[in-house]
Amino acid sequence: MNRCSRQEPHIAVDFRLDVALVHHPVVNRIGEIIGSAVTNLDLHDIARAGRTFGVRNYWVVTPYPLQQELAESIVRHWTDGYGGRVNSDRAEALSLIKISPSLEEVLAAMTQQDGCRPKIVATSASRQEKRTTYNELRQEIIEQKQAVLLLLGTAWGLASEVMDMADAVLPPIEGLGSFNHLSVRSAASIILDRLLGCRESADQL
Amino acid sequence: MNRCSRQEPHIAVDFRLDVALVHHPVVNRIGEIIGSAVTNLDLHDIARAGRTFGVRNYWVVTPYPLQQELAESIVRHWTDGYGGRVNSDRAEALSLIKISPSLEEVLAAMTQQDGCRPKIVATSASRQEKRTTYNELRQEIIEQKQAVLLLLGTAWGLASEVMDMADAVLPPIEGLGSFNHLSVRSAASIILDRLLGCRESADQL
Repeated sequence: MNRCSRQEPHIAVDFRLDVALVHHPVVNRIGEIIGSAVTNLDLHDIARAGRTFGVRNYWVVTPYPLQQELAESIVRHWTDGYGGRVNSDRAEALSLIKISPSLEEVLAAMTQQDGCRPKIVATSASRQEKRTTYNELRQEIIEQKQAVLLLLGTAWGLASEVMDMADAVLPPIEGLGSFNHLSVRSAASIILDRLLGCRESADQL
Repeated sequence: MNRCSRQEPHIAVDFRLDVALVHHPVVNRIGEIIGSAVTNLDLHDIARAGRTFGVRNYWVVTPYPLQQELAESIVRHWTDGYGGRVNSDRAEALSLIKISPSLEEVLAAMTQQDGCRPKIVATSASRQEKRTTYNELRQEIIEQKQAVLLLLGTAWGLASEVMDMADAVLPPIEGLGSFNHLSVRSAASIILDRLLGCRESADQL
């Protein structure tokens, strides 16, 4: 699982991990199904982490046309527009982003690209059934080149109908005691480090 | 190093890791020393990750009185104000935040609290001298109960005069190739997971 290579500045992504940030259907504080708003820094932070660790596509999933337009205009500013001209790293990161109206369309696009349906892996701040482990999924992605779609929820998390779509669920990120109130940006970054982070030597972890 | 305990909802923090987010002196894109602006989501995301993983204090370091006032008003809203009344998790997270005009004052406060000067550990997106490792620092914090001040830079990173203050520097977070363009929010989250994250079983990593 050694794939660290600071000597090679722009090696090709050789595995197939896509990330989807879901804005609908998610739940609110009291468990009702809602649609959440696209957040500028969710686009930036998860794209930057995605590009750092080698995510293939970062899907921003929202069914609302105005929210899709907003997300597209942010991405365009940082890829084709002024932002991208002054910050090429940011352009490279945000070029991972693809806007999609639904998870069904994401799955259809991935199935067409890979010739097979990806393994769908959900994340949750609470313990769920159908558990996988970080090490198991890391091996599937890096060694077996399994196509994987990792689902991240906004607001108070993925709706149960999305959890039902998942083939497996990663365990929650645990720290001290039961307090678990990470932002989706933090959770995404930690999960990508656990799945794809460099472990060249004991130095690294 | 097993310290995971979801059974205990609010166990006391038993180690002494403080985090400082430095807004001055940091460098800009061309290496000039600047002061950066306080960012709302830097306060929230790093406080939430800090509370999740057991950071003792989260120091927001800025010499500018108006920026100090801004940071204080954000923290107050989420601790004593309306935000805290509707979201107690957020109140608990943001109560970690202390505003300070300089690293010298942070060090003085920690030295008074602990009776000794903390070990100062810097972070950087590039390789530096005086390197420590994540595992080594994890052991010092968790097993040896060493008091540690972890320095995070905003903008394009910590100024060399801050790097010179450090007793040790953590290696950069590496992913695929040499692309390394994480937000400070993502970097902080990954570093805290590596230093303090639960590793109860192989399941966890």
